[in-house]
Amino acid sequence: MSTAELSREGGPAGSADREQDAFVGAVAGTLADFLESKRGMLESISPDTLALLDSIRALVTGGKRLRALMCYWGWRGAGGAADSPQIVAAGAALELFQAAALIHDDIIDRSDIRRGGPSVHRQFSQLHQRHRWALDAERFGHAAAILTGDLCLSFSEEVFAGIGPATSAGSRAREVFDLMRAEVMAGQYLDILEEVSGPSKPAAGAVDRAQSIIRYKSAKYSTEHPLILGGALAGGSGSLLTAYSDFALPLGEAFQLRDDVLGVFGDPATTGKPAGDDLREGKRTVLVGLTLAKADDDDARFVDERLGIQDLGDDEIAQIRAIIAGSGALAAAEGLIEDYSNAAFSALELLDIGVGPAAALGSLARAAVGREP
Amino acid sequence: MSTAELSREGGPAGSADREQDAFVGAVAGTLADFLESKRGMLESISPDTLALLDSIRALVTGGKRLRALMCYWGWRGAGGAADSPQIVAAGAALELFQAAALIHDDIIDRSDIRRGGPSVHRQFSQLHQRHRWALDAERFGHAAAILTGDLCLSFSEEVFAGIGPATSAGSRAREVFDLMRAEVMAGQYLDILEEVSGPSKPAAGAVDRAQSIIRYKSAKYSTEHPLILGGALAGGSGSLLTAYSDFALPLGEAFQLRDDVLGVFGDPATTGKPAGDDLREGKRTVLVGLTLAKADDDDARFVDERLGIQDLGDDEIAQIRAIIAGSGALAAAEGLIEDYSNAAFSALELLDIGVGPAAALGSLARAAVGREP
Repeated sequence: MSTAELSREGGPAGSADREQDAFVGAVAGTLADFLESKRGMLESISPDTLALLDSIRALVTGGKRLRALMCYWGWRGAGGAADSPQIVAAGAALELFQAAALIHDDIIDRSDIRRGGPSVHRQFSQLHQRHRWALDAERFGHAAAILTGDLCLSFSEEVFAGIGPATSAGSRAREVFDLMRAEVMAGQYLDILEEVSGPSKPAAGAVDRAQSIIRYKSAKYSTEHPLILGGALAGGSGSLLTAYSDFALPLGEAFQLRDDVLGVFGDPATTGKPAGDDLREGKRTVLVGLTLAKADDDDARFVDERLGIQDLGDDEIAQIRAIIAGSGALAAAEGLIEDYSNAAFSALELLDIGVGPAAALGSLARAAVGREP
Repeated sequence: MSTAELSREGGPAGSADREQDAFVGAVAGTLADFLESKRGMLESISPDTLALLDSIRALVTGGKRLRALMCYWGWRGAGGAADSPQIVAAGAALELFQAAALIHDDIIDRSDIRRGGPSVHRQFSQLHQRHRWALDAERFGHAAAILTGDLCLSFSEEVFAGIGPATSAGSRAREVFDLMRAEVMAGQYLDILEEVSGPSKPAAGAVDRAQSIIRYKSAKYSTEHPLILGGALAGGSGSLLTAYSDFALPLGEAFQLRDDVLGVFGDPATTGKPAGDDLREGKRTVLVGLTLAKADDDDARFVDERLGIQDLGDDEIAQIRAIIAGSGALAAAEGLIEDYSNAAFSALELLDIGVGPAAALGSLARAAVGREP
């Protein structure tokens, strides 16, 4: 998330911008220090295991920090201090959790590319190939990435627990963190289940099913839970946390719908992933559900039969794109993004959190749903 | 671990036996209650997600509870009370961690069988086949099992944090738990790395490399860390925890060596896994390292070339077994088991922990290294 968007020097947004930069820098520093603190332990086991640490470090170095920033402004909006190490650690824990989820997600989706470079399982299969090791490179890559993701998930928890009493058993913050983890894993399961079981289920329910998947695997996880986590850590009231939810849940839904549109129509230079990758992965998104409902029977069947074909050609991708646009599904998806965004921005107006946090959340929200460079 | 082995009614071991039964029952109850408490949350996302919970429940229902029991007697030996909910929760957290590790380990090793039934990834690929869903059943199974393992790993942490202040940031218990998780993942990475890179490394170092793998992926994790965790939770002194280590580390090494011997020579009815499975998986164990060092060149090459061949025939498995036995490698491995066991039992004699805990640890140790039914 470019902080340049927030920049209006002198006004409250300008000061929010400087504050946000400081926070992002502190999260990056905490992540670097934490990972560095694990080097000696891993090296004493074997220098070979540093490859896992390197993969994690590369992954948490990049990214938009959307979750950490939602958490930060949730904290600030609830009265948390700007320079607290607690909220920096919470941001770092969320970034590590996100990295773990991406590592395993890329294995599940067979995505070989992440942010323009090789995904973790590809890094390890390339390591295998470079050394001309025995047995199967791809299998080694998957196995190593499963373990790297597990390690990263444990690191996330370690950093979260390190926040102290505010995240101890029974705290609201831990409740949110635990729920977030369980919901995103359950939501991801629904996602892969829909890929395989969707074709044999009533097409009429496809949009509803896809919206449920969005809610759990992405919306709650990317925006709602991080914002509430920040608020809870700062001791925000129940009514504030509910108001956070009213803003962040539709925002997250709009964010994921935008992601789905970009997954089919996005520019690889911006998304960092090959064009049409979601179609090859067989993702049955809301956009796809709308297409199956709106396209004529022949077109719908054309799309339905090609979802999940790994070596789908660029020509067929182009044809599917034309069907999605021509059927009115793309316009309908854009309409949904608009509706969810409007709901989010209306709820944002009602948040009683001060000018700085409100302006910062507004900028984050605009960037999340528009995703303009 | 059958508690019948501990049974000498009337003596201290008899009372330890009753106590151990009560603990095992309490851990099972806590696991059942915890998982049941997650049902509503998952059901509200979608009843389909209960399949993940069912897989976890089935896995934590069985097993020998070795780690939970080591933890319990470490706690009791350090003066912890017999009926504390804290140690029951610690046992449950260790069992959930072990279940998560097994789920991912079975994907990595392509083990379709666990405790005589289908492993988790097989359960999900069978679910796919029963419903005649679209796309690839095996791929769906792997993806679902990755997510189930992640959920189980998060559950483990949730239960561990639920113990309370004794596992808060900076506590010795959390330090042990964090180290255990990182070491077992790093150790497992060394294990898969040796499978692929072992053939191109000097054969002379194979036994040393295999012993390092054993230490991290198994010995520390199965016996040393759980015992120390129990001791730390009860506030045991640094010197007691060091003495625990002197006992439990060689015990864990003997335990894993025994497991390696059973992985090649074990009776499937006892191990719950197909005969010779470790050879098909290409595990480069200490037993294999000893074979490569001791067999003549032709025999060593015969073994080396067949490790990791998935469809290795029973005839070839039998030939490899004959080479392992004939070369003296099997006897050498048994000798190592004997040496490690002796070191463990000598250290056990020196533990100042009272008659009951010492007798119980002795029984656990005998069962772990002998693995007689």
